[in-house]
Amino acid sequence: MKVTHLTKVASQPVDMPGATGCQVRWLVGQPDGAPSFAMRAFDVAPGGYTPKHQHPYEHEVYVLEGTGVVLEGDVEHPLSAGQVIYVAPDEVHQFRNTGTAPLRFLCMVPHTSASVLPAQAPECGIER
Amino acid sequence: MKVTHLTKVASQPVDMPGATGCQVRWLVGQPDGAPSFAMRAFDVAPGGYTPKHQHPYEHEVYVLEGTGVVLEGDVEHPLSAGQVIYVAPDEVHQFRNTGTAPLRFLCMVPHTSASVLPAQAPECGIER
Repeated sequence: MKVTHLTKVASQPVDMPGATGCQVRWLVGQPDGAPSFAMRAFDVAPGGYTPKHQHPYEHEVYVLEGTGVVLEGDVEHPLSAGQVIYVAPDEVHQFRNTGTAPLRFLCMVPHTSASVLPAQAPECGIER
Repeated sequence: MKVTHLTKVASQPVDMPGATGCQVRWLVGQPDGAPSFAMRAFDVAPGGYTPKHQHPYEHEVYVLEGTGVVLEGDVEHPLSAGQVIYVAPDEVHQFRNTGTAPLRFLCMVPHTSASVLPAQAPECGIER
């Protein structure tokens, strides 16, 4: 068993094309022996966003604090604490902080994601 | 994409031997098309607890609010908001609310859990 606190896990910049103002903490993952999926926590600074991209694996997301939007293609859904988002494989998506405080959310992914390079949405200038 | 709020998802009693004062919401699961794992939210009432049991699949847990303990066998770890718990396959575990407000946590499980019956810890009177 591993028991820790989010704030005790190292936060690192999200080093992906199209990401701005994003940090990630890997809360549970393969180094812990987790067999199939990982739990990460993202912090998106005011004005920041995750890449607008797609990939052949899913996300299961829970918003912890802050306000923002999730883009489903070009459709915006407002986000606040307690919101639940399921991003199906191959859906174009992006998380944006539209507030004045950090937007923090959990994002779970299957380990199969580690071997797959996401495809940027065309408007980002980097096509699949 | 599915976007909803925790409070909009139906809460149902946890109908498992050894559970007291527990409700669950299935936030994301197989009915949503999720390919490999599910996100549930549990509410444990003051004085309540989940079964003390074990099973051959993992849990990835994030505490949203309230106070309590997670038992790793007979060892207690205190819990509060922001705590992260990884329960490895086959570890005996139990979540207990030791506070005066509801203990709410997310608990992610692989879909393979659906076909496996957990084994109660011997002290519950129901052995594997």
